[in-house]
Amino acid sequence: MVGLNWTNRIGQFNAKTLVHFEHPMSLDTLADWLAARPASATEPLGARLAQGLREALLDGVVPAGQRLPATRALAARLGVARNTLVAVYAQLREEGFVVAGQGSGTYACRVAPEQVALRAPRAAAAALPAPALSERGRRYQAHPLHRFWRREPFCPGGFDAELFPHALWNRLLAQPLRRPDAAQLGAGEPGGAPALRQAVAQHVRSTRGVRCEPAQVIITDSTAQSLDLIARLLCDPGDRVWIENPCYWGASQALGDLGLTLQPMDVDADGLPLPPATGRTMPNARLAYLTPSHQFPTGAVMPLARRLEWLAHARAHGTLLIEDDYDSEYRYTGMPFPSLQGLDGEQRVLYLGSFSKTMYPGIRVGFLVVPAALAGVFADASADFYRDGDQLVQQALARFITDGHYAAHVRALRREYGARREALVQALWKHLPAELADPARLRILGGARGVHLTLGLPDAVDDQALAARCQALGVTVIPLSVYCVGRLRRGLVLSFAGCPAPSIDKLVARLAPALRRAVA
Amino acid sequence: MVGLNWTNRIGQFNAKTLVHFEHPMSLDTLADWLAARPASATEPLGARLAQGLREALLDGVVPAGQRLPATRALAARLGVARNTLVAVYAQLREEGFVVAGQGSGTYACRVAPEQVALRAPRAAAAALPAPALSERGRRYQAHPLHRFWRREPFCPGGFDAELFPHALWNRLLAQPLRRPDAAQLGAGEPGGAPALRQAVAQHVRSTRGVRCEPAQVIITDSTAQSLDLIARLLCDPGDRVWIENPCYWGASQALGDLGLTLQPMDVDADGLPLPPATGRTMPNARLAYLTPSHQFPTGAVMPLARRLEWLAHARAHGTLLIEDDYDSEYRYTGMPFPSLQGLDGEQRVLYLGSFSKTMYPGIRVGFLVVPAALAGVFADASADFYRDGDQLVQQALARFITDGHYAAHVRALRREYGARREALVQALWKHLPAELADPARLRILGGARGVHLTLGLPDAVDDQALAARCQALGVTVIPLSVYCVGRLRRGLVLSFAGCPAPSIDKLVARLAPALRRAVA
Repeated sequence: MVGLNWTNRIGQFNAKTLVHFEHPMSLDTLADWLAARPASATEPLGARLAQGLREALLDGVVPAGQRLPATRALAARLGVARNTLVAVYAQLREEGFVVAGQGSGTYACRVAPEQVALRAPRAAAAALPAPALSERGRRYQAHPLHRFWRREPFCPGGFDAELFPHALWNRLLAQPLRRPDAAQLGAGEPGGAPALRQAVAQHVRSTRGVRCEPAQVIITDSTAQSLDLIARLLCDPGDRVWIENPCYWGASQALGDLGLTLQPMDVDADGLPLPPATGRTMPNARLAYLTPSHQFPTGAVMPLARRLEWLAHARAHGTLLIEDDYDSEYRYTGMPFPSLQGLDGEQRVLYLGSFSKTMYPGIRVGFLVVPAALAGVFADASADFYRDGDQLVQQALARFITDGHYAAHVRALRREYGARREALVQALWKHLPAELADPARLRILGGARGVHLTLGLPDAVDDQALAARCQALGVTVIPLSVYCVGRLRRGLVLSFAGCPAPSIDKLVARLAPALRRAVA
Repeated sequence: MVGLNWTNRIGQFNAKTLVHFEHPMSLDTLADWLAARPASATEPLGARLAQGLREALLDGVVPAGQRLPATRALAARLGVARNTLVAVYAQLREEGFVVAGQGSGTYACRVAPEQVALRAPRAAAAALPAPALSERGRRYQAHPLHRFWRREPFCPGGFDAELFPHALWNRLLAQPLRRPDAAQLGAGEPGGAPALRQAVAQHVRSTRGVRCEPAQVIITDSTAQSLDLIARLLCDPGDRVWIENPCYWGASQALGDLGLTLQPMDVDADGLPLPPATGRTMPNARLAYLTPSHQFPTGAVMPLARRLEWLAHARAHGTLLIEDDYDSEYRYTGMPFPSLQGLDGEQRVLYLGSFSKTMYPGIRVGFLVVPAALAGVFADASADFYRDGDQLVQQALARFITDGHYAAHVRALRREYGARREALVQALWKHLPAELADPARLRILGGARGVHLTLGLPDAVDDQALAARCQALGVTVIPLSVYCVGRLRRGLVLSFAGCPAPSIDKLVARLAPALRRAVA
């Protein structure tokens, strides 16, 4: 049996190495070597000494068969407690680096076969480059978005803990904990907690006109994970996907890393236009990624007519439409449009939602609604690829929705975010009246929706340099061009989710001079 | 501005469609049409009627400009409360499907441009196939593992809630909730909660000899996510990775889906052997995926000598070693071997761990330890790709570890799982003495570690048919061959994590006859 095999080998190993030098190696040699090792601020003394001795053995500072200094002497020489060193010797015995000789003494084992060079010569080691990123990794690292992303107003992804009903949520979260069972702490049902799938199905049916049974709702931990699941089950490397330009970074990144070929099209005032007539010159795409409720980041809202044209295109070309319905809760004026999914008669739409921006970013609960024919395999794959998420949170969220707290919370958020958006628009008009009066210089893009607002700038303006100047003023705005995956568009994206209304005017006042100069 | 654009368009839209037929359409036509729609068990009446009317408009049952029946009459005809129907009409007005005429009456809007066919003819719609899985998706769906995976003993991934200190954990989990702040509920620090990164660094240093600073610890939600991050930052599509045959399914699946070329090698009694001399015929690999503490699923333990040989190979060929140290906590006899990462002098190892099997599967906390040079980009990418997980749980876990509860809990689990493993081994010898006495027929593979045990079977035995027979007997065992990514090996994987010791004997008794016949 394998067990015996390795035990025997170690046995022979140690036996072979017990060459019993009777005289311990020079105390000074080892002590100086240990003392010379760089100390770490956070590494406990015992761990550092153990690692030092391992390296002394691996590097041949202590040759195989050599007797180690007695703990008492070495401890005294190093000025450490003897017990510390006794524990370190015991640990190394456990690990097979040293053995206790007959009677007394501790001896170095031969830890590697002769042919194995344990370490590169110091020079070579120094020369050895750090592991390099791949081309994909370098593309990620070089993306300009990272240069601008800071946890400051007006950075996207902001969150205002003041608006969240903590006491209520904590009570719901604590309830299942009192009577936990394996199903709650263990991996749950494929597809997510049944109560949550039921609650989400009811919610999107009544608020978004989505047509689904609970079995079609797959709980994920985010929109990125929903996209990962779609790409892995419905696409092969090289498949094409129509994406919006500019585009939500998380979507283009996820779909690209899964091997899809991104086929960007410039969005207009109605969102993503229909693709040109496809044919030999323009092959058809497997997927189209759409944000019809509130295009990210331009804020364009796709009218009913274009939604129906996309559905007709999907039917004619077998393209699947991903409807990322992010921020659809946040509509301050104008009519809502029914979801693409609800208009679809032939199950050509995958509907995506998330609770990160209505509950809190750390909740890690999103979902997708898939065609009934795919519900089973999506549920299984989500369990197999990602397990099933935190069941306690999923059950608390199900209660939060079914008891009506979620709808009430979203109404409250809508009022508050509406006020913040109003404050931002007013501050912009107050501090930049001349610039906004001339749309050729500065424009507020998009409908009155969502938790961010995008300022359109002339193509001549370097929005990244401008955003850097704003950064220097302590206000984080994201340049529109960093979201572009095709023709560059210039602008600034301002998210107000994390900014109480009263704070907004002076933030805008701080930015105004830089903006004024940029579009002068 | 865009906002104005679409508002205007809708305005014209409605105006254009107000052709004011003064006579409402036949009440019976619409009522019969609505009544004929298939009812859903879970869909609320209002939502069903709203969707029915949308479709009546989309399908032309109600032509554009047509006046709808009065709510009172239609409600009476359908036998529903009038208020329900009033709410439905209001919802459709909101959505732009119908408009209120001057004075009274509700009129159908023209919802799509003339050239758009709103629906395929019923026949065509029926003919339209459901969206198909991609080749990648079909490979996943066809994988035999799914046929055998059931939440029953002895299925892997089992969990025993009885062993978990619920009260203590709940107290820690509840503490931050009393004084929540945006940092706790919002997206956290890139790389995970600093307190948890610190605690994990201390833990793996002292228990596994891992050499790292807290900044090198990246919190993920699972080993699968750790692998996803490695593949996306350090590999490009087509890069090769040495993997173990048989191999942990989650690893081969994740690495394959990210576009890596899997290069399997058969494991032996010491785990994954060194690759053959690489050259023109055998190009070098970018990565090697290793489970040296307890090879999954054979249980082989890699001796110190081979660990050092792998490190020498990595240094010589620039290969990065992924050390998946799963189950290293569960060692019942024999020596521990220091982690590969701790033996490594040149930062060629990525160390992976998870809390799913020491805390609970739903906790969704794993981690990887990366070379110092890569710590920054890994932390940023983990935040950008996956956000940062549930901060409340991460902080509670940090407390759980630093206060010493984790070490105590793992000790208790080790005792209990050791007893379960012992009970399983005894039951096997009790019920299959003759078979186990002849290793050519039945062998217990691997060292005394982990929470599963693998029975080796002769190559002639169809282990999938055998596992199916066990399934029929109400006991879930996973055939070894489903984990094979190269040459098939036959056996059964029995996980005892979810099986109290007293329950084990009769489970084995139930399996014994089938096993006996299979190896007779």
